[in-house]
Amino acid sequence: MAAFELHPKLRTDTHRLGRSGAIHILLHREATVPWFILVPEADNVSELHDLPPHLAAQLMATSNRIGRFVLGYFRCDKLNIGAIGIVVPQLHWHVIGRRRDDALWPKPVWGHLQAGGATRDDATLATLRSALLEAQCLA
Amino acid sequence: MAAFELHPKLRTDTHRLGRSGAIHILLHREATVPWFILVPEADNVSELHDLPPHLAAQLMATSNRIGRFVLGYFRCDKLNIGAIGIVVPQLHWHVIGRRRDDALWPKPVWGHLQAGGATRDDATLATLRSALLEAQCLA
Repeated sequence: MAAFELHPKLRTDTHRLGRSGAIHILLHREATVPWFILVPEADNVSELHDLPPHLAAQLMATSNRIGRFVLGYFRCDKLNIGAIGIVVPQLHWHVIGRRRDDALWPKPVWGHLQAGGATRDDATLATLRSALLEAQCLA
Repeated sequence: MAAFELHPKLRTDTHRLGRSGAIHILLHREATVPWFILVPEADNVSELHDLPPHLAAQLMATSNRIGRFVLGYFRCDKLNIGAIGIVVPQLHWHVIGRRRDDALWPKPVWGHLQAGGATRDDATLATLRSALLEAQCLA
């Protein structure tokens, strides 16, 4: 079996923060909102119901942990979570933190973010990675 | 404890198809795409990670069953699933079937549907309810 590969668009659009078990944890480069993307290591799976049950359970547990982390660390009011992918066929799971004062509230992020938005520097990413490790969101 | 009540906006925007265990199964009145909304019977829960585990498991199992049903019955190419709610605080879970030839593809539905779109008549809804019963999506 060939090694698992992230879809090229996910590789281009995100920082790779690490993994938790078989779940890759990515952060969208667009920093207007904290936008995590979780990718279970499964080949040729597009829909959640087609994931092997042990991977689905890992994905949901990781989504819950990352969701709680996002609400606290980024002081968010609400999460948007789910598999909304249309363009990228590889199953990927969004966990997005929303605040009443973010630039898009109450619109969803998809289709409403403009190219060339906010970014994060390396120091910010390193601090975030440390916090994720401490919160046992990375392993 | 007061009886569980659906959020008024969900009551207004959807047909109530029935339930599967503790999960209410609704269908958005906007018929441009098949748009199911699942609402677990839990008071004052906005985030998936705050659902009691047995309800979270029921919600995901129901989402998987409805997802497979939508792909087959409506001959869809892809699902959009998740909890995207910002305006409605009551936890509700979207299961939306998308086709390459639907009016919005590849955009998400949120924020892109216009008011006064397609609707379904009573006969269509009755046929759909029968098919859902047969597929054990309602009980």
